[in-house]
Amino acid sequence: MYTSKTEIVVRYAETDQMGIVHHSNYPIWYEAARTDFIKSIGMSYSDIEKSGFMLPLLELKSCYKGAAKYEDELIVTTKIKQISFTRITFYYEVYNKNSNILINYGETMHAWTNKELRPLNMKKHAPDIYDLMAKLM
Amino acid sequence: MYTSKTEIVVRYAETDQMGIVHHSNYPIWYEAARTDFIKSIGMSYSDIEKSGFMLPLLELKSCYKGAAKYEDELIVTTKIKQISFTRITFYYEVYNKNSNILINYGETMHAWTNKELRPLNMKKHAPDIYDLMAKLM
Amino acid sequence: MYTSKTEIVVRYAETDQMGIVHHSNYPIWYEAARTDFIKSIGMSYSDIEKSGFMLPLLELKSCYKGAAKYEDELIVTTKIKQISFTRITFYYEVYNKNSNILINYGETMHAWTNKELRPLNMKKHAPDIYDLMAKLM
Amino acid sequence: MYTSKTEIVVRYAETDQMGIVHHSNYPIWYEAARTDFIKSIGMSYSDIEKSGFMLPLLELKSCYKGAAKYEDELIVTTKIKQISFTRITFYYEVYNKNSNILINYGETMHAWTNKELRPLNMKKHAPDIYDLMAKLM
Repeated sequence: MYTSKTEIVVRYAETDQMGIVHHSNYPIWYEAARTDFIKSIGMSYSDIEKSGFMLPLLELKSCYKGAAKYEDELIVTTKIKQISFTRITFYYEVYNKNSNILINYGETMHAWTNKELRPLNMKKHAPDIYDLMAKLM
Repeated sequence: MYTSKTEIVVRYAETDQMGIVHHSNYPIWYEAARTDFIKSIGMSYSDIEKSGFMLPLLELKSCYKGAAKYEDELIVTTKIKQISFTRITFYYEVYNKNSNILINYGETMHAWTNKELRPLNMKKHAPDIYDLMAKLM
Repeated sequence: MYTSKTEIVVRYAETDQMGIVHHSNYPIWYEAARTDFIKSIGMSYSDIEKSGFMLPLLELKSCYKGAAKYEDELIVTTKIKQISFTRITFYYEVYNKNSNILINYGETMHAWTNKELRPLNMKKHAPDIYDLMAKLM
Repeated sequence: MYTSKTEIVVRYAETDQMGIVHHSNYPIWYEAARTDFIKSIGMSYSDIEKSGFMLPLLELKSCYKGAAKYEDELIVTTKIKQISFTRITFYYEVYNKNSNILINYGETMHAWTNKELRPLNMKKHAPDIYDLMAKLM
């Protein structure tokens, strides 16, 4: 299964008064990692959107096993967990780069839609994108 | 089951280039709603933290059924879904205030910890807080 | 000079590891206050955008005199400081609601543009909006 | 004058419904760039905080000359503009990496304080940090 890797350095603004990264930043890192994943297979999510396709989120799950701190260097790995003609699920793991400890994992399920956010069948409307993604599972 | 209500007005900064609220804002609204929930039962999360107890997140789930837009007025309802001596799970629903349509629901599972983020038994260390919360389930 | 008031309750996600609100949130609160200002004079910024006019930011200044903390109740006051056919500057003050202490003030200068972010003359393209705003200075 | 360079790739979450980066992200990028600046001179802001010194923001100015879009690669340059025993001002420029066009510049003035956010004289309390910074101006 194809896996991409994204490096994140924790920003001060991402911490909260607990002294650790606020949990709302992980979905944002997943998204940055997803962007890299798509880029690493020779496409770009910007171009996909320009072609009239969107990937709005349907479901998000995130499990917090450890904490990240300001200036920590992290690795986010990204895979496709599931793909159908109408939906795609990505799976992520977030590691501390130095300790190699898994601090978070999660997944995001997306619908393929048009610009008006109406669901569409990717196999029909963009078979090249669908086929490329499906091969990576 | 006790339910609190929180009103949110969508901020411009919360939108993304899809023209709708970015999904990473829902966990932040859950948190604002959780703050209100605790306040509505006569406590304050600030005071709980000052007493030396923290509620770091262990798991987050969020389901996106519809979109929210800039300036939309939303209602977030909050309940306790589950509580044990060491964990507490809140459940949230996000409605569009005008249409009354459910646009999102989700839950957050938290550990009770001390300031060093070590798990502790609330029944033992803060029975008053535990009992008050447990009654609301 | 017409002044609107907006109430903000500090969210946990808005704090950082210094234990106070991260400075990047003040511009977001200014924007929420600006939305309220426009609403309070009988318009809505959503409608202005739908009519094809945008108000992108040209300049931001913010002065931090004190700190805000989680759950603090704040008041943001908003005024129009300057207006011309092509630009508009808003001025904001942020007070702690309980102590009435000024913790921050700032201003944002905006251009009037079309959807493609090209500058336009409001007196010419939307004299009603311009006149209403100009009267409030 | 010593200048550090930081690379930023625009995240989807940083865009707004105007289709460009929301202005509140620039101060966050300044901060990431400031972190890199301090690291590039052989210190770390994490360590400075651990030694008991803080750099809370007193003033922020930001000028928006152009727009950044999702997936744009940006360069943020950072310099020390001014330094005294009690204050330090950083200056930033944000460029589009491909076009080399300046899209934003700004500055942040900070106070040197202790953990309780009380101002202190760096020349007296941390002459090594002060001297290292002052040399870079």
